[in-house]
Amino acid sequence: MPILCRPSVAVPEHVITMAQTLDLARRLHADHPRLDLALQLIAHTGVRERHLVQPIARTLTHPGLEARNNLYAREARRRVPPVIQGALRSAAVGATDIDAIIFVSCTGFLMPSMTAWMINNLGFRSDTRQIPIAQLGCAAGGAAINRAADFCLAYPDANVLIVACEFCSLCYQPDDVEVGNLLANGLFGDAVAAAVVRGGGEPGLRGVELERNGSYLVPDTEDWISYAVRSTGFHFQLDRRVPTTMAMLAPALHTLARSHGWEAGDLDFYIIHAGGPRILDDLGAILDVEASAFRHSRATLTDYGNIASAVVLDALRRMFDDDALDPGARGMIAGFGPGITAETCIGTWTSCPDRPLDDRSEEGRAHARQNPCEAEPHSAGRPPVRHDGVRHLADRSGTGRRGALPVRPR
Amino acid sequence: MPILCRPSVAVPEHVITMAQTLDLARRLHADHPRLDLALQLIAHTGVRERHLVQPIARTLTHPGLEARNNLYAREARRRVPPVIQGALRSAAVGATDIDAIIFVSCTGFLMPSMTAWMINNLGFRSDTRQIPIAQLGCAAGGAAINRAADFCLAYPDANVLIVACEFCSLCYQPDDVEVGNLLANGLFGDAVAAAVVRGGGEPGLRGVELERNGSYLVPDTEDWISYAVRSTGFHFQLDRRVPTTMAMLAPALHTLARSHGWEAGDLDFYIIHAGGPRILDDLGAILDVEASAFRHSRATLTDYGNIASAVVLDALRRMFDDDALDPGARGMIAGFGPGITAETCIGTWTSCPDRPLDDRSEEGRAHARQNPCEAEPHSAGRPPVRHDGVRHLADRSGTGRRGALPVRPR
Repeated sequence: MPILCRPSVAVPEHVITMAQTLDLARRLHADHPRLDLALQLIAHTGVRERHLVQPIARTLTHPGLEARNNLYAREARRRVPPVIQGALRSAAVGATDIDAIIFVSCTGFLMPSMTAWMINNLGFRSDTRQIPIAQLGCAAGGAAINRAADFCLAYPDANVLIVACEFCSLCYQPDDVEVGNLLANGLFGDAVAAAVVRGGGEPGLRGVELERNGSYLVPDTEDWISYAVRSTGFHFQLDRRVPTTMAMLAPALHTLARSHGWEAGDLDFYIIHAGGPRILDDLGAILDVEASAFRHSRATLTDYGNIASAVVLDALRRMFDDDALDPGARGMIAGFGPGITAETCIGTWTSCPDRPLDDRSEEGRAHARQNPCEAEPHSAGRPPVRHDGVRHLADRSGTGRRGALPVRPR
Repeated sequence: MPILCRPSVAVPEHVITMAQTLDLARRLHADHPRLDLALQLIAHTGVRERHLVQPIARTLTHPGLEARNNLYAREARRRVPPVIQGALRSAAVGATDIDAIIFVSCTGFLMPSMTAWMINNLGFRSDTRQIPIAQLGCAAGGAAINRAADFCLAYPDANVLIVACEFCSLCYQPDDVEVGNLLANGLFGDAVAAAVVRGGGEPGLRGVELERNGSYLVPDTEDWISYAVRSTGFHFQLDRRVPTTMAMLAPALHTLARSHGWEAGDLDFYIIHAGGPRILDDLGAILDVEASAFRHSRATLTDYGNIASAVVLDALRRMFDDDALDPGARGMIAGFGPGITAETCIGTWTSCPDRPLDDRSEEGRAHARQNPCEAEPHSAGRPPVRHDGVRHLADRSGTGRRGALPVRPR
């Protein structure tokens, strides 16, 4: 069963606080007829601060689409490598062990994708599969996890690297002054994140065993969250009905959990896309779970703002560091974004607490490889490599749930 | 084993001939210092005509990125549904049988992706996985086939719909006058294509059993084929070294074939991305195969121009219609694009010639379901649906090659 290892996350060095955000909104939009509403909405996000790839003054200028997209490329190449290194280290794999890279980002557009640059510059193999996804917005964090799990179902010994690169501040549009835009200007932040999904397992590996995933499109809500593509770049368009989405999405979460014999409201952990505070409040009420169940997602929102597809990876990183789960704990990871789309998976926390791999030295990892943690049923170790270079296939019979599509209405 | 069924392809009604293209180039670039070279290169493409979503005169104007991208959306919504219907019909499935949609297109950018529109408007289930890919360019046709095959390896009963939507004429940039741009202006055409990859098989189904796939990035060629993203949209940039790429890509094709016990130069069919005539000439020489081996790809290039990610689907469609293969024929499908990336797969032609499914009536399909073609070992029929709505998993043991990653240098 694929294991999602500890994500690595980095936020840029330039900080904007809530007070600065409100101050800016007052100054830039003093004559806006609905300024008070916008200020209220921003204050209500609970975002304490956000991190930006540029100083605030420069963030507020628009140098043109070409310059911005070039800046996106430069910043991505500068900021992505360290999180990749962290993600590989936590998964105890090297770059050459990676079989596919899923790169998700909706705040810049490069062709070739960053995946090509990464293969050329960061030691990945030339035969690494490239899966760049730009059009799922915030839901792409969940989608990346799900597609990585699927890839590992197809190739049980594969390792997939997920990278989420979101510089939302590079989509700031000075002339967009709808209330939804002013809110977005006070909500979104910049971050890069990476994580490895390991198909083959590893003694001592901590992570979430990804057991089942599902996607759901809320019918006829395509224009609720969207981009207008203009000469000035991507223009974020937010419908006022978006905060009410959870009631429409929750049934899909129930369906997914029940198809696995679980109850969505009765899980041990929740990693939910923190698009805004209302999402977490409403989903908590609908699933009837305590507010603390979403504490990692809320912490991401508070500390970094809505960092788009990187939210779920950062909230996951906090859960790993919190280290409060017992092996076997069951949980859910849900990304929400344009469509309106939910990309959700459910899985089980697995760990070998005596020998955590994260941030361990190469010697420690070698030791763990030679001394598998026998107590951990999921630590079956990596299958041996045949002399022809092809790894043995894991025996796929008897894995009742693997590869079953979730129950669906026909 | 996943089966790639007959693609459905459509080209727009507006036609530009080679003579018109050359005439236009002479008229628009009369003072260009290298006009003769550009004309030579265009004439050498062998493209007889191309199809455009707009009349020529309108194609030559640039109404701004926003208007163009809106036009892309309108044309996609108008032209994609018929090819989807055709693809579903050839695969003998309905929209509700589709579990994932892989939508590839590099000539417009929508968020939400067209996948959301398709689910809302064309009868697909709300839980259909959405996999939009915009950043693999011409290689995305091969990538879509490969990711669909992978999805069916993970979920053996799944059906994946591939859609390639390329309106290259909407990336025409009047001010780009490098020789590479003039050549591109005479080479690329518009088309939409769709095909279904069926995991579960079906009695009487004709198609290519997808046995193994691989990706390869030619090191340090990122800037050979690329987009510059500007206020006027995507600007195609073509390096003069691109036509020499085949010598660098061919070893990856050999590696993939050999990892399967096959020889790349000794196959029964070839579906190769016809980026230009030199690609086909060089690859033919390198693999030492007769020119006729690439006849379907060459026909696509001649009749439609380079239609980007849709090339391999159109060449495949021609191979289905040609109907010259015996069951068990072995072949290769290769998409090439920015990176420079090759997305290649190898597989076997399978068919039940007495009962071709394509374009058959619903009655005929029902008859085929009740009377499976016993002679066809791959026509195991679709597994029964359990009372809980989850299809039985195919027995995955004993499938020696399934899910093995190709040999790779470590």
